[in-house]
Amino acid sequence: MTHLEKLQAIRSLMKEQNIDAYIIPSSDPHISEYLPDHYKCIEWTSGFTGSAGTLMITQEFAGLWTDSRYFVQAKEQLEGSGFELVKLKVQHAPEYVQWVSEHLPTGAKVAFDGNLASLLVANTIKNTLAPLGYSIDGHADLLGPNWENRPTLPVNPAYTLPVSTTGQSTVDKIAAIKAQLKSKRADAHLISSLDDLAWALNVRGTDVPCNPVVLGFAFISENETNLYITAGKLSEEAVAEFNSYGVTIKPYEEVYDKLKSLEKGTSILVDPKRTCFAVYDSIPEGVQIIEDMNPSTMLKAIKNEVEVSHTRNAMINDGVALTKFFKWVEENVASGELSEISIADYLAGLRSEQPGFKDISFGTIAGYKAHGALPHYSATLESNSLLEQNGLLLVDSGGQYENGTTDITRVISLGNITQAEKEDYTLVLKGTIEGSMAIFPKGTRGYQIDAITRRPMWQTLRNYGHGTGHGVGFFLNVHEGPHVFNGTATDIAIEPGMITSIEPGLYKEGEYGIRIENLVLSKELKSSQYGDFMDFETLTICYIATDLVEKSVLDKVHIDWLNQYNECVYNQLESKLTIEEKNWLREKTKAI
Amino acid sequence: MTHLEKLQAIRSLMKEQNIDAYIIPSSDPHISEYLPDHYKCIEWTSGFTGSAGTLMITQEFAGLWTDSRYFVQAKEQLEGSGFELVKLKVQHAPEYVQWVSEHLPTGAKVAFDGNLASLLVANTIKNTLAPLGYSIDGHADLLGPNWENRPTLPVNPAYTLPVSTTGQSTVDKIAAIKAQLKSKRADAHLISSLDDLAWALNVRGTDVPCNPVVLGFAFISENETNLYITAGKLSEEAVAEFNSYGVTIKPYEEVYDKLKSLEKGTSILVDPKRTCFAVYDSIPEGVQIIEDMNPSTMLKAIKNEVEVSHTRNAMINDGVALTKFFKWVEENVASGELSEISIADYLAGLRSEQPGFKDISFGTIAGYKAHGALPHYSATLESNSLLEQNGLLLVDSGGQYENGTTDITRVISLGNITQAEKEDYTLVLKGTIEGSMAIFPKGTRGYQIDAITRRPMWQTLRNYGHGTGHGVGFFLNVHEGPHVFNGTATDIAIEPGMITSIEPGLYKEGEYGIRIENLVLSKELKSSQYGDFMDFETLTICYIATDLVEKSVLDKVHIDWLNQYNECVYNQLESKLTIEEKNWLREKTKAI
Repeated sequence: MTHLEKLQAIRSLMKEQNIDAYIIPSSDPHISEYLPDHYKCIEWTSGFTGSAGTLMITQEFAGLWTDSRYFVQAKEQLEGSGFELVKLKVQHAPEYVQWVSEHLPTGAKVAFDGNLASLLVANTIKNTLAPLGYSIDGHADLLGPNWENRPTLPVNPAYTLPVSTTGQSTVDKIAAIKAQLKSKRADAHLISSLDDLAWALNVRGTDVPCNPVVLGFAFISENETNLYITAGKLSEEAVAEFNSYGVTIKPYEEVYDKLKSLEKGTSILVDPKRTCFAVYDSIPEGVQIIEDMNPSTMLKAIKNEVEVSHTRNAMINDGVALTKFFKWVEENVASGELSEISIADYLAGLRSEQPGFKDISFGTIAGYKAHGALPHYSATLESNSLLEQNGLLLVDSGGQYENGTTDITRVISLGNITQAEKEDYTLVLKGTIEGSMAIFPKGTRGYQIDAITRRPMWQTLRNYGHGTGHGVGFFLNVHEGPHVFNGTATDIAIEPGMITSIEPGLYKEGEYGIRIENLVLSKELKSSQYGDFMDFETLTICYIATDLVEKSVLDKVHIDWLNQYNECVYNQLESKLTIEEKNWLREKTKAI
Repeated sequence: MTHLEKLQAIRSLMKEQNIDAYIIPSSDPHISEYLPDHYKCIEWTSGFTGSAGTLMITQEFAGLWTDSRYFVQAKEQLEGSGFELVKLKVQHAPEYVQWVSEHLPTGAKVAFDGNLASLLVANTIKNTLAPLGYSIDGHADLLGPNWENRPTLPVNPAYTLPVSTTGQSTVDKIAAIKAQLKSKRADAHLISSLDDLAWALNVRGTDVPCNPVVLGFAFISENETNLYITAGKLSEEAVAEFNSYGVTIKPYEEVYDKLKSLEKGTSILVDPKRTCFAVYDSIPEGVQIIEDMNPSTMLKAIKNEVEVSHTRNAMINDGVALTKFFKWVEENVASGELSEISIADYLAGLRSEQPGFKDISFGTIAGYKAHGALPHYSATLESNSLLEQNGLLLVDSGGQYENGTTDITRVISLGNITQAEKEDYTLVLKGTIEGSMAIFPKGTRGYQIDAITRRPMWQTLRNYGHGTGHGVGFFLNVHEGPHVFNGTATDIAIEPGMITSIEPGLYKEGEYGIRIENLVLSKELKSSQYGDFMDFETLTICYIATDLVEKSVLDKVHIDWLNQYNECVYNQLESKLTIEEKNWLREKTKAI
């Protein structure tokens, strides 16, 4: 079926079921960001492959609501699909709900599949539209009936991690969750989100590309802990291990029965952002639902000393791969044979030679010249550019290692750089440095670090359309909450032990893109009479190119920071490099 | 009755009515910040006179929850009252609710007077405690029965303002509110908050000290606009004027009858932050209550050109009074007769000579040396310090003029200044300057300006415990929402036309306090390929002392800003000063 035919088929079903607007969110029953193929509903319906967006279909209109990161990509991919791009003013905002109230008459029926919508999204739809007189149906699957050869759910094996890796035993983690349930007066708790599940039970898998997670649910109450997982994914040894921790293994589908069997008068804590509407809706009336953040989310975000120490080592290994990579690009670009795709493959190969490597942590963004201006660019066979000896190359990449997750962006010059490129590069770098060297009181929120990072750019009327940084997991998802460094009113304090990216950028459409990204660890710094202060330790270990720096844009503090950082990179990596690589890196890290 | 006796009387009533915890918020039926004497319940009960706090009483414990601004004052004032100070971790947070859940058994009865609590506070109490098994009573007045000679509600006259002052007619303002009601599908709207009322109906009064407002309610629907106000407050002419705008005048108390008479199936918009629980609770079941910000709040915050132009003039007049004041202090401090109270009175006298002066806009904070370290210090006959020829004097003051509201803080040296004082002063000034010269994209939130203002201090492990700035009215309340520059996750964009203070500070307990405060107008600056950018115009016109500046703490941009600002102050004021004053100000504003 073509996308147009699929759209037609959905509209036919809508007519049959008296549905006036059908919403297709980008999610799955686990509210994952990266989806198993079975749940790539937006791609199947419209052809759009971006990781954030929402489709809405009426008889007259079909639209994809997505944010500025995807405008160019969406325009191309939606061509001929029958879907139009609707540009979101605010990233992730449910502006399609507003659209319904403006375009459909009161009384219209709005539907979605409760397996694809978080409780939060479902509530937003309901609470906004129901009072205005719309009727809402959260149980309409209009894709399934027409989806031929729909991929099945993955059944890849899963495995447990030892305490020497995670720093905290499964038993201790479950106890920590139970303690929080008690303080929130919840009798039970359901974990739907896969990274929470993986953290809480020290389990990993390969069900989702780039995210070392396994499909499942966990049910935790005072007296039982159940892991709902497809049979055969766990080895007998793993099952026995779980049993020894008091964790019972149950079939994946039985989670719904468990919820349906909850007794009246009991209470269950579910996270409205990380639980799908269908799961929520299977909890019987009379059970008190406590909507709160998964306790594991904050516990997971604050890395323990074992995790931090592992991550520092993973960063060194990652830095070795990156050093070899940039040297290789520089020395081979003259061949004219390097392409965006081939260098991404080469980098993945170098990473895979490092100890503990499991996977890349997201699809590598290797954007040459104008492609660098697409913050979430992913080269395709059609778009794939050959590198020449001029212009800027942006590489945003990361690895999943058994001892940590990495995410780094660097920009290098392939030759013939303009003054404008140097100034923009240096302004981005100034932002990265201001964020990285920030000192801030305990209780500071990510939006305050965001403002501090952007300030130098703002003063020159420049800005970037994405957040400044995101939380990063420990051998887990490269995007991890609850904290974030962006301008939204996310009321989460930065705690010691959190790992977050700092990645300002500048993008000139059709010309070039610049982003410089490090991961930082937030730490207690010092107390003064004015309170307790924190700062960041930069974890990422890879040189920052200095040949692109326009020194007049920087103050002395920035230059000092840059020189110290590059010196530190050299010192940390040299013992793992060949003499040739060492000499090359020595040049790259020379003080300016 | 002593405070201890009052506490005893309240506890007796609690026993009679089976109330286990009694909460006394600091508010009134209009959710005012500055209260008429009739509603000074916390002061009557405990003796505490600060403008923010909450009392909670059980049989075993009586506490005042307040924030760091009031710690010292509260400790002193609560002495012997039977109340203990409980230090709030987060300003305005309802931490006493948490206290209840930790100290009282499930099933306990928690009560408050719905006239003193906003709907938001009432909902917080209910939604937090009811699910935990507490019972809540929002209609318990335990003060009235024992309050002898309770002050009556004020019946001061009220008056209307012409369009030449307000820039927008009453008819146009009501139409603007109605348009917003329509878009929110609300049939009716109740305004309880006095500054919203004053703005919407272009009416002013003197019912509340320092706030030129009048006690009343407004009810607005498609077909009627009623002003509920005590008879006799409006002249016959004013009543006729209102009638000509389609506004009907009704007795103050009748607003409750109006609400009770609302028909089932209709909808009414009320602001949960600006409506008291008692008013809310008189709306019959079956009426749909739309909880949203008062439409007037955002309309009021965005000043029109007439208001801005008036305010610029008010600032010049205010600056003249301030110039004369600081000159007088400097020249008379040697007498040994100036005190914190006498200089505040003198300043009020100078302001009252300025055209359009109506009142001061808040109780003047004249804090000498250690008193300056109390951000909300108000000198009493006991605390009143005589000024000497040494140390720092902090003066935070403002005026209500018919053409604008002012609020300014300056710190001057009376002699013998230490290097530490100079460094702290200059760091505060650096913050004021960084905030004032900030350039930021449209959509920026106040918390981002807060971070930018604090950054230079944070880098030196310094900080201040209050917000960076608050919205300011036009001949209205000196604290005005919805926007604010502080660290809280207040999701309100800074719009062109808003007036806000920028007032960082540093406070050394027992030594000195420093705060430098200007009001700024947010404006559209320029668009670039990265979006639309805004900046601030500083409205306040009064020199910033340079003899306290430690130049090495500042960068060139800061020194340039300071010199340009002081030069501009001189140019704007000189024509209104005597030759002697001009010469004095010329010295004060010399470039450094």
